[in-house]
Amino acid sequence: MISKDLIGTKNEAARVAHEDDYGSLGRQLARRGVEIETLTARAMAWSVAIPTWGVGTGGTRFARFPGLGEPRNIHDKLADCGVIQALTKGTRTVSPHIPWDKVSDYNALRQEAASYDLGFDAINSNTFQDQLDQEATYKFGSLAAADPKARALAVAHNIECIEIGKALGSGALTVWVGDGTNFPGQQSLGGMFRNYLEAMGEIYAALPPQMSMFIEHKMYEPAFYSTVISDWGSSLMAAQALGPQAKCLVDLGHHAPNTNIEQIVARLIHVGRLAGFHFNDSKYGDDDLDAGSVDPFRLFLVFNELVEAEGAKGFDPAYMIDQSHNVTDPIESLMGSAIEIARAYVQASLVDRKALAEAQAANDVLGAHRILKAAYLTDVSPILAEARVRQGGAHDPIATYRASGYRAEKAEERPMVKGASSGIV
Amino acid sequence: MISKDLIGTKNEAARVAHEDDYGSLGRQLARRGVEIETLTARAMAWSVAIPTWGVGTGGTRFARFPGLGEPRNIHDKLADCGVIQALTKGTRTVSPHIPWDKVSDYNALRQEAASYDLGFDAINSNTFQDQLDQEATYKFGSLAAADPKARALAVAHNIECIEIGKALGSGALTVWVGDGTNFPGQQSLGGMFRNYLEAMGEIYAALPPQMSMFIEHKMYEPAFYSTVISDWGSSLMAAQALGPQAKCLVDLGHHAPNTNIEQIVARLIHVGRLAGFHFNDSKYGDDDLDAGSVDPFRLFLVFNELVEAEGAKGFDPAYMIDQSHNVTDPIESLMGSAIEIARAYVQASLVDRKALAEAQAANDVLGAHRILKAAYLTDVSPILAEARVRQGGAHDPIATYRASGYRAEKAEERPMVKGASSGIV
Amino acid sequence: MISKDLIGTKNEAARVAHEDDYGSLGRQLARRGVEIETLTARAMAWSVAIPTWGVGTGGTRFARFPGLGEPRNIHDKLADCGVIQALTKGTRTVSPHIPWDKVSDYNALRQEAASYDLGFDAINSNTFQDQLDQEATYKFGSLAAADPKARALAVAHNIECIEIGKALGSGALTVWVGDGTNFPGQQSLGGMFRNYLEAMGEIYAALPPQMSMFIEHKMYEPAFYSTVISDWGSSLMAAQALGPQAKCLVDLGHHAPNTNIEQIVARLIHVGRLAGFHFNDSKYGDDDLDAGSVDPFRLFLVFNELVEAEGAKGFDPAYMIDQSHNVTDPIESLMGSAIEIARAYVQASLVDRKALAEAQAANDVLGAHRILKAAYLTDVSPILAEARVRQGGAHDPIATYRASGYRAEKAEERPMVKGASSGIV
Amino acid sequence: MISKDLIGTKNEAARVAHEDDYGSLGRQLARRGVEIETLTARAMAWSVAIPTWGVGTGGTRFARFPGLGEPRNIHDKLADCGVIQALTKGTRTVSPHIPWDKVSDYNALRQEAASYDLGFDAINSNTFQDQLDQEATYKFGSLAAADPKARALAVAHNIECIEIGKALGSGALTVWVGDGTNFPGQQSLGGMFRNYLEAMGEIYAALPPQMSMFIEHKMYEPAFYSTVISDWGSSLMAAQALGPQAKCLVDLGHHAPNTNIEQIVARLIHVGRLAGFHFNDSKYGDDDLDAGSVDPFRLFLVFNELVEAEGAKGFDPAYMIDQSHNVTDPIESLMGSAIEIARAYVQASLVDRKALAEAQAANDVLGAHRILKAAYLTDVSPILAEARVRQGGAHDPIATYRASGYRAEKAEERPMVKGASSGIV
Repeated sequence: MISKDLIGTKNEAARVAHEDDYGSLGRQLARRGVEIETLTARAMAWSVAIPTWGVGTGGTRFARFPGLGEPRNIHDKLADCGVIQALTKGTRTVSPHIPWDKVSDYNALRQEAASYDLGFDAINSNTFQDQLDQEATYKFGSLAAADPKARALAVAHNIECIEIGKALGSGALTVWVGDGTNFPGQQSLGGMFRNYLEAMGEIYAALPPQMSMFIEHKMYEPAFYSTVISDWGSSLMAAQALGPQAKCLVDLGHHAPNTNIEQIVARLIHVGRLAGFHFNDSKYGDDDLDAGSVDPFRLFLVFNELVEAEGAKGFDPAYMIDQSHNVTDPIESLMGSAIEIARAYVQASLVDRKALAEAQAANDVLGAHRILKAAYLTDVSPILAEARVRQGGAHDPIATYRASGYRAEKAEERPMVKGASSGIV
Repeated sequence: MISKDLIGTKNEAARVAHEDDYGSLGRQLARRGVEIETLTARAMAWSVAIPTWGVGTGGTRFARFPGLGEPRNIHDKLADCGVIQALTKGTRTVSPHIPWDKVSDYNALRQEAASYDLGFDAINSNTFQDQLDQEATYKFGSLAAADPKARALAVAHNIECIEIGKALGSGALTVWVGDGTNFPGQQSLGGMFRNYLEAMGEIYAALPPQMSMFIEHKMYEPAFYSTVISDWGSSLMAAQALGPQAKCLVDLGHHAPNTNIEQIVARLIHVGRLAGFHFNDSKYGDDDLDAGSVDPFRLFLVFNELVEAEGAKGFDPAYMIDQSHNVTDPIESLMGSAIEIARAYVQASLVDRKALAEAQAANDVLGAHRILKAAYLTDVSPILAEARVRQGGAHDPIATYRASGYRAEKAEERPMVKGASSGIV
Repeated sequence: MISKDLIGTKNEAARVAHEDDYGSLGRQLARRGVEIETLTARAMAWSVAIPTWGVGTGGTRFARFPGLGEPRNIHDKLADCGVIQALTKGTRTVSPHIPWDKVSDYNALRQEAASYDLGFDAINSNTFQDQLDQEATYKFGSLAAADPKARALAVAHNIECIEIGKALGSGALTVWVGDGTNFPGQQSLGGMFRNYLEAMGEIYAALPPQMSMFIEHKMYEPAFYSTVISDWGSSLMAAQALGPQAKCLVDLGHHAPNTNIEQIVARLIHVGRLAGFHFNDSKYGDDDLDAGSVDPFRLFLVFNELVEAEGAKGFDPAYMIDQSHNVTDPIESLMGSAIEIARAYVQASLVDRKALAEAQAANDVLGAHRILKAAYLTDVSPILAEARVRQGGAHDPIATYRASGYRAEKAEERPMVKGASSGIV
Repeated sequence: MISKDLIGTKNEAARVAHEDDYGSLGRQLARRGVEIETLTARAMAWSVAIPTWGVGTGGTRFARFPGLGEPRNIHDKLADCGVIQALTKGTRTVSPHIPWDKVSDYNALRQEAASYDLGFDAINSNTFQDQLDQEATYKFGSLAAADPKARALAVAHNIECIEIGKALGSGALTVWVGDGTNFPGQQSLGGMFRNYLEAMGEIYAALPPQMSMFIEHKMYEPAFYSTVISDWGSSLMAAQALGPQAKCLVDLGHHAPNTNIEQIVARLIHVGRLAGFHFNDSKYGDDDLDAGSVDPFRLFLVFNELVEAEGAKGFDPAYMIDQSHNVTDPIESLMGSAIEIARAYVQASLVDRKALAEAQAANDVLGAHRILKAAYLTDVSPILAEARVRQGGAHDPIATYRASGYRAEKAEERPMVKGASSGIV
């Protein structure tokens, strides 16, 4: 683990500069009618989940180039997530992936996680790969497959995930299926949806009352002509058909080009079905790039909706990072992303909502826009750093991590296994 | 009007060749287990509506280049639509646009239309332009506007449309609003939707029981950052909030790039909310090109869903052409489009649905796809021609129209008014 | 005009806060090894051109909603541009549009512009609209048309523009043609390009040695199936065929979805053919939204390429704002955009290029990215304000403009003409 | 192999029906002024190459679901390609992939191929994966990498490919590199291009005079923020920098959404740099679906350009199928695709180019379009079948293949190796 001494030494070295920056920003915000401490308190309360597969190196269909010291199992993954939490103090939960994170003793796993200051978030089922000696193949689909045996297998797997989720204290089961077709005519578009709803209904029936079901849509990939839950409309139809515990999850990279994602957030909030978010960024297809690395203003606009909705009845979205780290150290990418996501949240918290509502009512178009932009342009880095430092985290998590030698140490502990993993497990 | 003699003469000249083609196709289809007369009967029963604005020349924000003999009013428009129906025999209704098609005596207008063998289809309201001396502006929106006066005006206009629709025998009111924003922050995304639902509720309340409300979504334009009803999910949410008479209309050009439109059709059929279609084609934005001119296979795939759904409870979609004819004679474009749409319908009727279902059940992916492709590759032109000729229409509508001299005659009757119209009224 | 007293009073009211912000930023930058005065000097030297059509209200093919006090002619337009320059001090040139800005005495026009502290930038020809009683129509194209008369007319118009440009002191002729097709087969794709090259060759031959020819590409609109100069590859091929005075202009809104525009900039710089930029922003098609309003990081990344290329041989790009102001006061939008563009330029100037090159050489992917992000996240507003104030401009141009009453005054002077303009002239 | 007896028996069973269809089409074409034998002769002369990786099952980054009897090496691959050629008679060459197809004796390999009636087409290098114990990694790029060792390795590999190509009688080396970045700032966009040009220059220098270099561009994947050769403009710039033996290859799936690919073909023909095509189809990203399965009209429009260009000086494009068969039997998909490609070629050969040129010259927009459509709507299946049968191929290749039991036989011969291949080698 990262030593507290190292964190303390690094933070102290940055202290004077940080105090100047934090003080300057405080004075500026005060002139704008904002108390900096309110924002710092919000930053301290913020948290986003890390998926267990996120700490491994990802790849593409062309190749995966493994990194050094990659985690070999859920225990290694928890250790890596613990580093992220120790340094950023804003990633308090971990989202497991089944079957890869299965263990024999889930109580022990909860305690192991707690030792890293971590809890468990939504549990993720997986039916996009066949496991060794599986009784039916998911080659042509899982929950929506034409083959009833494939559907039954997928239902059973999801019900097992619910049981594991209960054991781990998860509040939700996230269901994403890539089921779809590669050819017009391969399957009936309506028929696949009916198969899906029937299978999901069996899973839903197994949910305990305190658990939610998160439905995740994705435009395409691995299916390239049609995908059964390809858009938020299909996701909403499914949630409505299933019942009140079913909600719709939004992943920033799962939409058609040019889609206004923040408006989808607003719609799902309106209808009371927003499950939460999977954060990442993208420029082309579902790129799973680091959050805020390509279009940080879009990330801010999503948070603008979320902050606007705070306090609405039943509004309690779940947040997770969902990225593929192909060319970076996953721990660095996840820390950087956690910071960018918190940045967008704090910037959105800065929006002068009263002035905004007045400008909107008066059709002062540019005035309203500039109110948003004023919040976005504010460099809230000192607030984010202050929130970390006050909780014992690092002023500069990435620099501190690099100084710690953690990766080099793990590279020795965890030898590279050539060609082993696809990077999404 | 087009003389029956001209049609007869032209058809006779084509007769021998046509009979050979029709006979050959009949033999081929018989070998494939299909009775050609069944398809010809379906082709004869098919009809698609023409919007009154379609017979005028369209333009872009850069320019409109008027054509010769453009219709000056609803009476000229009916005459032009009458030509299309006389030659193609598959465009039996006209969809009016208010306020442009307002007259003092709607009963007389129905009789005038009937004299051309035409009835009235869904009535279209318009709140994307300000009318002279309008009490409030639609510059910042209509049904979803922040300004309650603009909303009230738009509601009143739609209720007036319902009244006119009743007088004309229309079965539905189509509501499309371009309301939205050009800047992040310009309006609350949730707030605009709430305004919209409230205003639509007032209109819905004025609907007589036999009339439907068609909600049309569009991704963007005239608003360029957000649009209140930008996708089918928003459209469905609105329809669900309003009541059972509200349904969702799909326009082929109103989607994000790469969208699988035929699956949207399948979803709306599943949920019992498919209002119908606006046909056109597009390559980039909402291009309003001639149906089937850019991606004819996509048109076929849409019809594949529609034909598959035939017989489902409450399934009764309305079909209209909705194009902008910027560089062609609108009558020619509309006849060509009516033929391409009928072609896709007949091709989709050719799909061997029993064999398709078997291939799908067996996950014979390529086999299933090839069943669709076999239908699509069939050149059903002889069936379409036979259906026209049997009903008194033209074997080759465009050639017959060109031979008739109709446009030149109208060019004299209807002098060009420079810069007068924007081409979308 | 805006009174200097008003500017002075407003600036004085903001002075203390501004000094605190500027001082704080200076200390932070000094800690990062950057001298704030260097950046302020760069901000003071920066300028972007305003197109004369930009000060009018724009519209869409659906409607144009005019604003108050719109300019009626080139003299009004210069007055409005003068206001923008007086307040922002970073828009020192005006880009005229022919035929709308034609006058009898260009020498007088230069003096009139100079009285507003303005010069003339690239001159823009126009062949996307027919002028009254034009001998041939541009309905089917201009420089690339099948009709030789249309081509000859367009060539003559462009040569006239060169003459006017000479008289006004313009350094370049910008040629954008929307020529293309709406239907596959409408014209030969190769044939249109050959027609275009031949016509452009005649125009090129009329260029004086000190004038450049800027070729602007656009993916689509007004043509919706193909456009003769639809991408930078076609633009480059044309420039290479014409000669060294021909260069390629990049407009941020004229690309396919997802295009990496900053890489196009890098390519054109590599080949020595970057003419310059037309700034705006867009979310869907060619939206012509305000620069930096939808994707400000993309704007920064473009400037990152431009600043990286500074000092390269022959590198001297021209910069212009090219927006359509449909729902805002154009003067406000142009001032806001000028500020956002200058912001991106100053942020890009902040990039630590030595550290960046080192991180890139070491494949420190996240480190390199964070160096860019550090520059982008810096709120350089105090530098931009300081640069304006030092030159006699406004600390807050939009607030000062609103306080001045300029628009209300012009609304009286310049009565609204209903339906007069399409907003793109 | 497929027995000639089986082919003969199946063909004979279809003979009477085929003769009726072929005769009917012949009469129809004769009425349209076209001699069917001319088209049949063209169909017989047509050929498209099969890539060796195409006969394996492909996958996505999520999973690869292997098929039965997958080829284990170049010898198995040649056998599978031989089946395709035997049945379709229009796939006379194979395009090898190095290092996977390396053997010790290339002369023997040529003879082995010849025994299947196959020759070798363009040779493909590969630098998107690391080979075991490679001296430098391609993780951060190959020809464009920052690391000179990675570049040198990639250059050496390509030069080795040239040598193998010479030994196999290949006429060209195809170079596709996925080099690019996942983060803004990761590398200098200009710098990567300069590295690429330098490395490509070394490879170009090793080309023998009779060999061409084909440069393939791709918008994205495996790199997700920038790709060094992402578009045809970059490809052309590279070809121009390298020399006359360098040309630009177009793959149908490697473009931005909405791109007009047929116009790119026209541009590359104009500038004399069209290398040829990689055929497939796609709906979203680079989907590598079966040619003609999603947008068959687009395929036709590409061939419309190619047929129009026939006879132009130096026009001699290379054609290859480049698909990923994830859910079908690759042999079936490749045969189906070969047929669809030949279909588009024959349809494009049917265009009445004289009438088209006249309609274009007269700006008869719809008339011109309908001339293209008339060719496209013609069901030329009987011509394609006749061309196969006359050469000893199958009237219905897929049905004959299914009847042959080839796959079941190979499934025994070639046992499945779990998780072995990524499907793109």
